[in-house]
Amino acid sequence: MVKVVIIGSGNVAQHLIAAFQNAQILGSEIQLIQVYSRQTANVSHLVDLEQITNDLDTLAEADLYIIAVSDDAIGVISSQLPFKNRLVVHTSGSVPLHALDEDNRKGVFYPLQTFTKNKAVDFKIIPICLESENATDYQLLDKVAKSISEKVFAINSEQRKALHVAAVFVNNFTNHLYQIGQEICQEHQVPFEILKPLIAETANKIMVLSPEEAQTGPAKRNDTATIEAHEAFLSQANHLNIYKTLTQSILENGKKL
Amino acid sequence: MVKVVIIGSGNVAQHLIAAFQNAQILGSEIQLIQVYSRQTANVSHLVDLEQITNDLDTLAEADLYIIAVSDDAIGVISSQLPFKNRLVVHTSGSVPLHALDEDNRKGVFYPLQTFTKNKAVDFKIIPICLESENATDYQLLDKVAKSISEKVFAINSEQRKALHVAAVFVNNFTNHLYQIGQEICQEHQVPFEILKPLIAETANKIMVLSPEEAQTGPAKRNDTATIEAHEAFLSQANHLNIYKTLTQSILENGKKL
Repeated sequence: MVKVVIIGSGNVAQHLIAAFQNAQILGSEIQLIQVYSRQTANVSHLVDLEQITNDLDTLAEADLYIIAVSDDAIGVISSQLPFKNRLVVHTSGSVPLHALDEDNRKGVFYPLQTFTKNKAVDFKIIPICLESENATDYQLLDKVAKSISEKVFAINSEQRKALHVAAVFVNNFTNHLYQIGQEICQEHQVPFEILKPLIAETANKIMVLSPEEAQTGPAKRNDTATIEAHEAFLSQANHLNIYKTLTQSILENGKKL
Repeated sequence: MVKVVIIGSGNVAQHLIAAFQNAQILGSEIQLIQVYSRQTANVSHLVDLEQITNDLDTLAEADLYIIAVSDDAIGVISSQLPFKNRLVVHTSGSVPLHALDEDNRKGVFYPLQTFTKNKAVDFKIIPICLESENATDYQLLDKVAKSISEKVFAINSEQRKALHVAAVFVNNFTNHLYQIGQEICQEHQVPFEILKPLIAETANKIMVLSPEEAQTGPAKRNDTATIEAHEAFLSQANHLNIYKTLTQSILENGKKL
């Protein structure tokens, strides 16, 4: 049996808790034995009360401690752990391994997904990016990760940084483009709903085509008349600025080919 | 029975042909009686040879002619039709109604989706945006559209222009962000595959949450340290420029709330 403690109670912590619990029901030998949360109430709907603590000094002995807290709290909380030489990992895409305190063995357990409170996700298909200081620890992380996901990758800190930046483009920025789409619809009294099948298909396409193959639109076609009509149509300076920046980037790409 | 002729053989034309054929199999009273294609071979895998013509002068008599050709060919081909006062529509998001020749009754039949050759789409969920000059023609368009889709909307030329621009943001530009994500992955030897579940969930989220609710990331959190780290990490000037533009836009949004 491998004993795991989760430290934290936010989005990532809650989804991890649910994933380990599901795996346990299906017979996994990975056992979530305790959750640390400053506010017990945050996780009391997920975990039995006797398995929750709000006091780091009462942390149970475990094979793995997963710190799933906000980026800037990782260093502090890792330095407050009342033990040494145990395996302690964080779940962040942007925090380096060495941000964890030197007293314990360090690692990273980064599930690359956007987690929404109260929206279930299928953890099995979520890539988990692992890093550790030594091979034995990596084996343990690999075992734990594979108990909840089918997609486990060895990713070093530099690669993880690249993934995190890339994730900002394909998730944060993409969502912001959805918002601009919604703003344009609202301005012209068109239901944003009409765009949702297009949004779904845009993401679907990328599962089977490369982004280059999937690219369409006036910039890709170098259709200057349509681009100019769109630019004239956009009434908000910010929308126009983003339209020009991304159109220019697609046009430049076309020249490279 | 309502007789329909499709003029064109590109992506949109081919997907429309397949959608009408599927509806006919299921007993629809809308009948696709002919397809015009300059290159017969483009549609010979979809339509019986005797139903294909490459000569506008041999177009059959029909209740509706759907011109599904590239934007800049719509006006020309509509002016070459050898008949008058019939209902002729185009399928473009960015071409106004009045681009069609005056000799016939004008309308728009715009399926808002990104069509890929050889990739089937479920036409039932594709929004079709309709416009016509009079109510009788609208009723016919509505009947034809509802034979292939459950989502039919009355959208005037101004609204359609807004939808088309918004579609550029949520489809063309989003796909370009996928491409930048891929470029960053390639540069740092990380498989782009790792980002695909995130891409899928980003689109899934927007089906149930508003873009504002779904927005996450360093710009949304006003996390200056992470933003600066990302900007320092990006080695391509174009990636950096887009990162700054979209980050600034999300930050400005935060200030508005």
